[in-house]
Formats: sequence, structure tokens, C-alpha cells
Amino acid sequence: MRRKILTGFGLAGALTLALAPPAFAQDATTPDATTLLGTQVNLLWIVIGAVLVVFMQAGFALVETGFCRAKHAAHVVSTNFAIFGLGFVAFFLVGYAFMFGGYSYVLPGYDYGYHSAIGGPLVGSGDWVFLWKGGFALGDIGKAGGAAVAGFFLYMVAFMDTTATIPTGAMAERWKWKAFVGWGLFCGGLYYPLFGAWTWGGGWLAKLGNSMHLGFGYTDFAGSGVVHTMGGVAALAGALVLGPRIGKFNKDGSSNTLPGHHIPMAMLGCFILLFGWFGFNAASTLAATDIQFAIVATNTALAAAFGATTAMFWCMYSKTFKKPDPGMMVNGMLAGLVAITAPCAFVDPWAAAVIGTISGVLVVLACGFIENRMKIDDPVGAIAVHGVNGIWGVLCVGIFANGHYGAGWNLTTEGTAATEKGVSGILYGLDPGLGQLGAQAVGVLVLCTVMFGFALGFFKLQNAIMKGGIRPSAEMEIAGMDLPEMGALAYPDFLEIDPVVLHAGISPTHETRTAEPV
Amino acid sequence: MRRKILTGFGLAGALTLALAPPAFAQDATTPDATTLLGTQVNLLWIVIGAVLVVFMQAGFALVETGFCRAKHAAHVVSTNFAIFGLGFVAFFLVGYAFMFGGYSYVLPGYDYGYHSAIGGPLVGSGDWVFLWKGGFALGDIGKAGGAAVAGFFLYMVAFMDTTATIPTGAMAERWKWKAFVGWGLFCGGLYYPLFGAWTWGGGWLAKLGNSMHLGFGYTDFAGSGVVHTMGGVAALAGALVLGPRIGKFNKDGSSNTLPGHHIPMAMLGCFILLFGWFGFNAASTLAATDIQFAIVATNTALAAAFGATTAMFWCMYSKTFKKPDPGMMVNGMLAGLVAITAPCAFVDPWAAAVIGTISGVLVVLACGFIENRMKIDDPVGAIAVHGVNGIWGVLCVGIFANGHYGAGWNLTTEGTAATEKGVSGILYGLDPGLGQLGAQAVGVLVLCTVMFGFALGFFKLQNAIMKGGIRPSAEMEIAGMDLPEMGALAYPDFLEIDPVVLHAGISPTHETRTAEPV
Amino acid sequence: MRRKILTGFGLAGALTLALAPPAFAQDATTPDATTLLGTQVNLLWIVIGAVLVVFMQAGFALVETGFCRAKHAAHVVSTNFAIFGLGFVAFFLVGYAFMFGGYSYVLPGYDYGYHSAIGGPLVGSGDWVFLWKGGFALGDIGKAGGAAVAGFFLYMVAFMDTTATIPTGAMAERWKWKAFVGWGLFCGGLYYPLFGAWTWGGGWLAKLGNSMHLGFGYTDFAGSGVVHTMGGVAALAGALVLGPRIGKFNKDGSSNTLPGHHIPMAMLGCFILLFGWFGFNAASTLAATDIQFAIVATNTALAAAFGATTAMFWCMYSKTFKKPDPGMMVNGMLAGLVAITAPCAFVDPWAAAVIGTISGVLVVLACGFIENRMKIDDPVGAIAVHGVNGIWGVLCVGIFANGHYGAGWNLTTEGTAATEKGVSGILYGLDPGLGQLGAQAVGVLVLCTVMFGFALGFFKLQNAIMKGGIRPSAEMEIAGMDLPEMGALAYPDFLEIDPVVLHAGISPTHETRTAEPV
Repeated sequence: MRRKILTGFGLAGALTLALAPPAFAQDATTPDATTLLGTQVNLLWIVIGAVLVVFMQAGFALVETGFCRAKHAAHVVSTNFAIFGLGFVAFFLVGYAFMFGGYSYVLPGYDYGYHSAIGGPLVGSGDWVFLWKGGFALGDIGKAGGAAVAGFFLYMVAFMDTTATIPTGAMAERWKWKAFVGWGLFCGGLYYPLFGAWTWGGGWLAKLGNSMHLGFGYTDFAGSGVVHTMGGVAALAGALVLGPRIGKFNKDGSSNTLPGHHIPMAMLGCFILLFGWFGFNAASTLAATDIQFAIVATNTALAAAFGATTAMFWCMYSKTFKKPDPGMMVNGMLAGLVAITAPCAFVDPWAAAVIGTISGVLVVLACGFIENRMKIDDPVGAIAVHGVNGIWGVLCVGIFANGHYGAGWNLTTEGTAATEKGVSGILYGLDPGLGQLGAQAVGVLVLCTVMFGFALGFFKLQNAIMKGGIRPSAEMEIAGMDLPEMGALAYPDFLEIDPVVLHAGISPTHETRTAEPV
Repeated sequence: MRRKILTGFGLAGALTLALAPPAFAQDATTPDATTLLGTQVNLLWIVIGAVLVVFMQAGFALVETGFCRAKHAAHVVSTNFAIFGLGFVAFFLVGYAFMFGGYSYVLPGYDYGYHSAIGGPLVGSGDWVFLWKGGFALGDIGKAGGAAVAGFFLYMVAFMDTTATIPTGAMAERWKWKAFVGWGLFCGGLYYPLFGAWTWGGGWLAKLGNSMHLGFGYTDFAGSGVVHTMGGVAALAGALVLGPRIGKFNKDGSSNTLPGHHIPMAMLGCFILLFGWFGFNAASTLAATDIQFAIVATNTALAAAFGATTAMFWCMYSKTFKKPDPGMMVNGMLAGLVAITAPCAFVDPWAAAVIGTISGVLVVLACGFIENRMKIDDPVGAIAVHGVNGIWGVLCVGIFANGHYGAGWNLTTEGTAATEKGVSGILYGLDPGLGQLGAQAVGVLVLCTVMFGFALGFFKLQNAIMKGGIRPSAEMEIAGMDLPEMGALAYPDFLEIDPVVLHAGISPTHETRTAEPV
Repeated sequence: MRRKILTGFGLAGALTLALAPPAFAQDATTPDATTLLGTQVNLLWIVIGAVLVVFMQAGFALVETGFCRAKHAAHVVSTNFAIFGLGFVAFFLVGYAFMFGGYSYVLPGYDYGYHSAIGGPLVGSGDWVFLWKGGFALGDIGKAGGAAVAGFFLYMVAFMDTTATIPTGAMAERWKWKAFVGWGLFCGGLYYPLFGAWTWGGGWLAKLGNSMHLGFGYTDFAGSGVVHTMGGVAALAGALVLGPRIGKFNKDGSSNTLPGHHIPMAMLGCFILLFGWFGFNAASTLAATDIQFAIVATNTALAAAFGATTAMFWCMYSKTFKKPDPGMMVNGMLAGLVAITAPCAFVDPWAAAVIGTISGVLVVLACGFIENRMKIDDPVGAIAVHGVNGIWGVLCVGIFANGHYGAGWNLTTEGTAATEKGVSGILYGLDPGLGQLGAQAVGVLVLCTVMFGFALGFFKLQNAIMKGGIRPSAEMEIAGMDLPEMGALAYPDFLEIDPVVLHAGISPTHETRTAEPV
């Protein structure tokens, strides 16, 4: 297996490579011209993919801001803007090292020099010398050969920022800026890298194939779980600690719709996310020479199309909506995208269509359940989209994976998964399908308990130690957080402001069509 | 010719390849490493192109919504959003098979396995076994080698969605949601694939070079006709069946301006379209190894720049505008882009500049003609932009093509076009220029009669069988379709709503600066 | 050196190649298949880069429009829209020839045919025959082999448009349309190409390494100076000639905040700029086979992240803001991006982080200094972002460059820079660090005197010869320039217009929260 990677185009199967022992790297010999060109093209694909994922930040900002109210718009869009830098800085300084333990790509002809044991007990590496030289703040990758590490880092930091920005939706309109800043640093530096180390970093969840004969171990191609559910459970934790917005629930427990202030903005955001998601999923082959990227891209588009269409039809004919709700169309597409992210490389197009179809219904039902049964206020539906559909996506690998792709995944050498066959789910045989589904279920369990608990603990702790807690005053929330928190209104030419209130630094509430029963 | 393709990088000249007989495919032998890498890079270029074209959906949504009124904004943007999924689903299930008859790429080293006779009497293939195995719902491309088909499908489905979304502009502000849903499915499943099969699918229009000695037959590099005129004639048909918006025309026949509600939104949309159009045109080489993509990209940008600039100057010095109308700048750029789409690979940069310059004037005149002479209400100018300039672009191939590119196009072996020379127009000699212009004219004729008639028939039938027709009630149209049709306002925090009307599910008309003489 | 380039992948080190004497080109022999594929991939990377930079136009449009007031929004966004075409047309017709003197890429296997002496006394070439045949309006590149020139032109024209659009921000809300049109043509045809010829065109600033032993001569990887400072000094000149907006400064010299009307729009614009900047910087390797592009991309992202984050924290704890000002977050990210643009290929990641950190503070201080000390009104902060941080970026090359990249840059053969070592700054030794810093300082000096003077002269001349000058009437400025200048309001459904005033073609002032003391 290793040999195959080495004589191939280098970055192919890089997630697998991530588990290679250190000695492996020293094998690299000078490649021939074609192999070298292949590695260069592969690195280009990774960087293009990273650029697309970075742009998703704009998509999240617009979807979440469009689905919130105008009086908080500057605050909501600013959290989505600032998270890019906050998470990035923390991940650059420490998170990347924790997640990958200084693992660095070995491009034939571009040996970087530092390699270390992967998959230490808790984080990516137990080799602290390496962490210092090659991990923290990217060490000294400025040297020749570091370009491959730089490209990989860029791709990975963009994924982290996706996780970091998800809670800004569920926690919108009632989250203090300084509390949010803490979350950004925590997520990039610690929260995201932890589960990342256990999975993509080669940790114990990735090793479930060898250690417990569970298929290829936890398998998540582009991060339905590693990125989206991670964001979703943190969003749930944050929403629980904050509680619902003022005016969301009535005394009898019924809920009010607090409509988003800008539907075209949200839909533009969704299209930007769709656009960037091709980088998220298709470039996760980490190689242009692995043409599975084309299957991945098509499956991604299929799940998005079927998710949006199903959600639209479901709402048109549901008793609750009776109309093609624009918000649910958006969430339907996003749900399909989230769900296909883990299985996109392993399933047939028909399966991508089925996964998207189910996601389109699942997200509508989950939004209703979370609001009406759990009484949780999630202004943009982030928990349903990223949390619930992320879990659904992780499980889909164990159900729909067709066995054509992923042989050798996670360097699994034990059990049925050690054969030439790729990752396969229960629809293609109970062995190793059942084991694979089991590995996926273990991953889901860890996400819903350990990672949810970690996020909940963080928010509770923060709430306890910050003066006044992590939620702004009711007065500020009703007036809109834009002036008091950001010092600027999102739309000063459109929303009229009472000058008296203005000088007090608090704007009056803007009348929305839903009366707010404070 | 065939041999050349086979020993080349596989996807080069793929549209030509589309006409190869089935036996051809079995010739594929294992390529050397460099050829293989070339095919992989070519597939990457197709997928990147597809991703750019998919993103154009956002551009259409913003241009059309920005040019409409705020009271319909959620409805207009939602049609542009939902069409992506609706057209996609229909094209995936049946349209792709109809258009390409199961034609699949044969990448050296990635033989897909199923191939069929191309160019059946009406649709892509008469081979129903193949349609089932390889066409409908992408058959079983999940198998090894299917990646090339998946990439090609993704690129093609994105083109289809462009056609599908064009009528949502001309028919905006007065189109029932359920009627629109029918159009989306019809366009993706039947309307678009029909003309597509006759042209890019290798049908009778593509064969006009061999069958009637008309140059290389109907030649349309990236779809001025196949995509844009197809959308434009459907937009015309739809606008005719719907009739003008209430308040557009006065009793004396004069017209009122119903100004778009968001100019920056429309201009952002136009820039997104420009951005995506590079994928639309340049990736239509279907190969990175065919460096004509760079000429194509530059010609595309030139036509856009000259189109926008000419339209601006024309308006500044016209008696009607006297000012650089923002809407016409946008339509000028789009007109240049639409017109260069067919000839972009075949013409010199100076010709691209000339084509764009003419488009910039043509679109202003056409908008005026359609509104003032034909008395047709097209809120966004879609008929002028996509219909009229699409026709202009198709004809430009027969005028400006310089003979340097496209030798062997459409596998033409008859007449003057059988020589080594590329596609060439009348400016470079009347033989085969006149024949080429003839083939283009036949294409235009078919678009304006058969395809226009097909769309008109569809809308009339739909209008006849749907309860109340395809147009909403006057009350709903005046109030704005957002609440009654979508259940949500686009901007609930900005447009004030009378609570009484709100609870009736109908919002009152928002006063715009043009009085509406109902 | 030359030999190395020729046997390499063709476009690698192309800026260096730009200085090669004409004879060089004829050496090109038929490359082997792998080299050929490498050149094709390199050209693809350039075109993808160009497409990303073209899209930045949308980013500028949104940032500048969002930071201005609603009553001028159609005007501001239209200048950013129209500049794309105006600059493009002028650069295509004459500017490109002036800048590169008909220099054309010689791709192995794709010889273009025309080559000329580079670096004439003032502009790119003294060879007027060549300018005619190969430079003006791209000459006859439609011939085989012209694709490489076309791709390079497209990349270069997109950079020019960035310079051209920067003054539209600093001069916003008080600039006559016709005056703006003149600027667009001047910038694309003359202003930008002049400094461009001296630097990237191989002129005297590029030759400072050989002529004066100043390191590798003026070195600006992707244009902190060539693009951004050029725009910044023109913005300063324009703002000086126009004077401040009515209501900006009080009689006592204190200033009023005239808040931008749309924060989410500005932040979306900033994300689009970040996205496009990867094309701006990373594709400036002009080769995918030069994997330094990955280091460049990561450094670019780092400077953006640290710039935005530092500006945010600085504002949160500054006495002036006390809050995380959304506008300064945006400008902090842009400042980091501008500053990293010159050094991005030459510095370590830690240095990119430091450069971004300093930029984030520098931009906040510079905005305050320009407004409060210099009493210059720059509505969007363009002078601070592009001018000040552009200078900072140019100097950073002479400070932080680590010596690992750029050996042979600018074909320097004299002094210490003639060794195998790459570009290096004073932190890595005073020789050649001090010389390099000197070359950078000479560039900055030229930008701040010659180029600033050239722009100032243009605006003053234009102001003198245009009837009524380049500034609209006070009445028009107060009412908003949208109706009188563009004939259209940006948001007609939201801003109420007095019908009487409407028919006079002048809209009344819209009340903003800052009273305007006219």
C-alpha cells in the first residue's frame, strides 16, 4: 500500500498517508518528471480547494445574517467575519500542531524534513520537539519543501473555520462580542483539533478498523462529522446556555416566527456555500490525479439539488407551511450538502440523490422538533442543518458506501477491510458493512457526548466567569446589538433612529411584524 | 482525426468525439504516464469549469431580483434558487440521456464501458438499453472509470440550468409558483435536451456539414444558441402568455418604468456572471491541454468590457437616457458575454472587441424595441440579452471565425470544411464562410420557430389546464407575491405591513415611485 | 539562468524572463511531452488566477458602496462597475503595449513569433513596429501560439483594473461621472502602464540591481506598490482636488462620521477580495510548476487573518472606538492583504503574521491621521489601506525576505544578489539586505513623488478644463447623485422620494443620523 502511494503522485490518499510511520518519509527518492508534475498539480488542486473553502465564510455570513433581524445585522455579520481571523490565528499558533502532530506531507522531490510519530494518546503527536520545530506557528516551513505543508495547512485551517462559524448562527442576536471572541480562539486552538486528531489526525477513531475490526475505522471523507456535526453540537450547547431570544416563545410554550430580514442575502449565501462546497468535498481527494474528485463533485451537486427540491415540495404540501418556504429551500440544500460530505467519495449517484432527498425532509422535521419540542431557539436552523444532517451523513457511509473506493483507508490491515475492496456499507453486505456502520456510530456517539460536553462545559464556564455572563442585557437585545456592541448600525440610512436613544448608545427596537411579548 | 484524439489527451475536442461511432471507444489502450496525467488535468478543468457555471446561478438570481421590485423579491429570488434543483433533478433523471444518448467520455485508461450509437432521429440515442444502463440517473457510473462521465455530466447540467433560469427574469412578478415548478421540470427533462441533442449531442444540426455541405455544420462553441437563445425564446413565449405586469403599460400604449429595487445587487450579480462565464466559455475546450482556453478567456473578457462600455457611452449620449443608465451597463456586459459565447474560440481579439461593441448597442435598441414596439413586458431585459444577442452570437461564428481553430469540428468530412482549416466565416472567404453562415442561420431559424413554438405550446397548455391559469390574481400581484406565494417577505424589517392585511395573508402594495394605474 | 528557464516549465520565472533579449526567444525547441503538459498547466493557473482577480472587481464595488451612503449608492457602485470596462478598453488598445513593449511569452512549443527589445527609455519598448504588430489591441495573437500572450494579458489587465478602481472609493459621493470616465481611460492607457513598465516591464526600477547594486532591484512580487500604492496615491490626489464631502468637517475642524449604509455588503465585498487575492498573489508565480504558490497562498491568508484580528482587538481596547468597529475589521483584513502582496513569496509564515499584525494597527492609525490631521475625506479609507499599507508592503521585502526564493530575480547579475541566494532583507544580513531595502525605498519615493504628481496633475488639469470642474454641484451632492447623474435610484422602493423633486430630476436629501451642516 505504501509503495503504491509513493510511486503514485504523492498526495494521492494523503489522509491515509497521514498514518504512515515516520520512517516512511525518508524513503522518498527523486521522482521522474511526470511524477513531479503530478505532485505539483495535486498541490495546486489542494490550494484551489482551500481558496474555495475560505470563500464559504462569506456564504455563512450571508445565510446567517439574512436569516436574522436587521437590528442585529451588523453584529451577526461581524461575528461571521471576525471568526475567520480568530479561529485562524489560534489554529495557526497551536491547533494545527495538536491535530496533525506535525505531520507533514512528503511530496516526492519536496521532502520537508521533519516527521513525527502520529496519533499520540490525546492529540496528534506526543513528539514535543517536533511540535515546536514543525507544528506551532508552522515552524520553519519557509524552507524549501515546505510548500506542501503550507498548502495542506491552508486547506485544513479553512475547514476549521467552518466549524467555528456554525454556532454564530444558532447563538445569533443574543451573544456578547467578547464571549464570542473566546469561542473563536477556543475552537481553533483546542475544540476542533481534538476530534480532528482522533480522526483525520490518525487517532483512535481512525484506528477502529485495526483495533476493533470495525470496517476501516471511523471514515468521514470531507467532514460531515469532523466539521459539521462538530459545529452543530457546539451550536446546540451554545443555544442551550444562552436560552431563547426574547420574544421567541410565548408563556404557553408556543413559538413566534422572528423572520429573517433579507431573503435574497440568505439565498446568495447559500449559493456561495454550494460553490465553495465543491472545494470542500472534491478537493478532499487531495490529488487531481485521483479522478474520484469528479464523482465527488457530481455527488455533492446531486445531494444539494435533491435536498433543496425535496424540502421545497415537502413544504408546499405540508400542513405547517403550505407554501415553498424560502428559508427551508435554503436549509434543504445545505442539509443535502452536509449529509453528502462524509460519503461523497464512496457512493453512487443514485445514492447521493437518495441521501439528499432524505436530508431535505429531515431538516424540515428537525427544525420543527428543535423549536417546538425541545424549545430551543436556533435563529438560522444551524443545529438541524449541521448537527442532525452531519450525523445522518456520517451514518450514510456505513449504509451506502459501495466498496469501489477507499481500499487501504486509514491504513487498515485487519479484518475484512484489509482486502482490496473499498469502504462499504450494509447495503453491500453485512461484513464489513456492519462493522463500518459501527465505527460510524462510535464517531457519532463521541460527537454527541464528549464533544457536545466539551463545548457545553466551555460555554457554561465562560458564562460563569464573565461579568454579567455571555448574554447581553435584555435592553440591549431588544434595541438591537449593533450600536451598543459594534458601535455601528448595519443600515443607518434605512432604519430610523431616535436621536435621544442614539446618544445613549442604544437604538430603540425596530418594529418587526412579529410583536415581541417581552 | 480519431487517431489524433486518441493519442492526444483524451478530452481534447470532446464535442467532436461525441460523434465517433461506438467501435471507436473500444480502441482505447493504456496510455503512458504523461498522457494519463493530461487526462486527469483535463477532467479537473472540466470540473472547475462546472463549479464556475453552477455559481452563475447566484448571478442570475441577483441580477433578476435586483431589477425587480421589493414586494416580489422573495418570489423572484426563490424561483432563481429553486430552478437549480428542479432542472437538475429532471436533467439527471432523463434529460442527460436524451441529449447525449448515453454518450460517455472515453478517457485513455478510464474506459467507462457503455457506448452507443449517437444521434438518433430525435434525441441523443435510439439505443434504449444503453439509455437505461448508462443514461437515466447516470446509470451505473459509480463503477471505476465513471468519473469522466460524472465530470462531463456536471458541466452539462450546469449549462442546462442557465437556460432554465432565463425565463424567470422575463416572467418575473406575475408567475405562479406551481406553474414555474412545471417549467423547471419541463426544461431540464425535455426542452433543453431536444435542441441540445440536435447540436452538441451530434444530431442533424451538427451534421449539416456532411449532409448539406454547410461548413462544419451548426457550430456553437459554448452555447450562444444552445443555452442562451434557448432561454431567450422561452422567455419570450412565457412573457407573451403572461402578458405585461399591471401598471407597465398605459391605456394610450405608452409604458412606465417600474424601476428595479436594488442596483448594487444587480451589479454584483453581473460580476458573478462574468466570473462564472470564464468557466462557461474557457472550460468548453474540455481540456487544459488545449490552450485555446486562454484565447477563449481573453475574448470573453474583451466582449464583456466592450459591451458594458459601449452600452454606457450609448446611453450617455442617447436622447432617451442622456445618462449612463446602470441597468443598461449591466445588460451591455451580459449582451457582450452572450454574443461571444458561440464564437469565442474561433475569433481574434479585435473581433471579440467588435462583437462586444455591437452587442452593447444592440441590447439597448432591442430592449427599447421589445418594450415600445412589441409591447412586451420583460422586467429584466432577458429577451434582449439572451434571445437577441444569442442569435447575434450564433451568426458571428459565420462572420468572424478566422479559420485557425476547430479543424475536424463535428467530424465534418465533406466539402471545403474537410480540409485542415478550422471554422471560418465570410470575412475569411465566402467558401466555406457562406456555408458556415448558412448552417448558423439554419440553427437560428430552428430556435426561433421550432423551439420557440415548443416553449409557447408548453406555457399555453399549462395556462389552459391549471386552475386559474399560470398568472396569479391581480390582487396578489399588486400586493406583492411574497406573502401569498412564498409565505415570507423578502425584507420584513424594512417594508411596513398592515397587520390586518398580514393576517389575511396578503400584503398591501408598497408605494413605488411609479404610480400603478390599475 | 536563461537555460534553466527554457528547460524548465516555460512560464516559471516569467517576470524574470521579461528581461530576456529578443534573440533568446528563437532558441525555443520542441519540448518533450511532460514539459509541454507543464506549460499547459502553467497557463491554466494564470488564467484561473486572472479570473479570480477579475472577480475582485465585485469585492471593491461592494466594500466601497457599503461604506458610502444610500443616496449615492447607485453612483458609487456604477463607478466600480464601469471602471472594469473603461480601464480594460484603454489597456487593451494601448496600455499593455506601453507596459510590456510587446513582450510576449515564449512557451516551448508555442512560439508566438514577435519579440522585441524590452525596457525602452520610458515605456516597455522602443520598437514601434513591434508595438503595432504585437502590442496595440493585442496585434495578431489570434494566430497559433498566441494563447500564452492572451492568458498573460488577461492576468495583467485584471491587475490594472484594481489600481483603477481604488480612487473610486476615496473620491466617492462627490465625483462627476464624466470626470470619472476620463480617469478610467487615463489609468488604463497611461498612468498604470508607466510605473508598470519601469518595474514588471523590466524598466529602470527593475534594473537597480545591475545598475546600482541595490539587491535584485525593485522587487514587488504581486504589486503592493505596482498596483496598490499606485491606486492609493491617485486616490490621495483625487481626494485633494475634490475636497471633503459637504458635512464631513465642521467649522472648528472636527469631523463627523458619515456612516456607510450597508455593513453586510461591505463585509461580503471584503470576503470576495480575500477570495480573489489568492489569484492575485498565488498565481503570480505564473506557474503551477513553481510550488511556491502554496507558500504564497498561506502567507496571504495569514496576513489577512492577523490584520483583521489585530484591527479588531485594537479597536476594542482603543479610546476612540472602545468597540470592535466593523469598518476597521474590514480595513484591517484589506491592509494585511495589501501589505503581504509584495513580500508574499519571499517571507516565512511567522513574518507574514507579523506583517499582517502591524498592518492591522497601521491602518487604524493611518485612517485617523488622514482624517484628523491631514483633514482629508476618504469615505472608505482607500488611502490608508492601499496607499499606506502598500508602501509598508514594499518595504517589507527589504526587511523580511528570507533569501530562499527569487534567485536570479530581475536577471540581476551584479553585486551580492548575483549569487544563488534569493531575495533577502535586512533581517537576514545587511548585504544585500540594505541594498534591497534601498531599491524598495527608491520605488516608494518614485510612487510618492512622480506617480502622485502625475495623478495630481491629471485631476487638476481635468478640473480646470471641464465645465464646472470635476465635482458636482452642492445641491446635487446633498440630494444624492443617483438620480441626477445616473437617472436611477439604488433603492427606489426603500428611500422615499418627493414626487415634485423627482420630476425636477433631483431627489431630496435622505436624512442620515448625522446632520449635515451645509
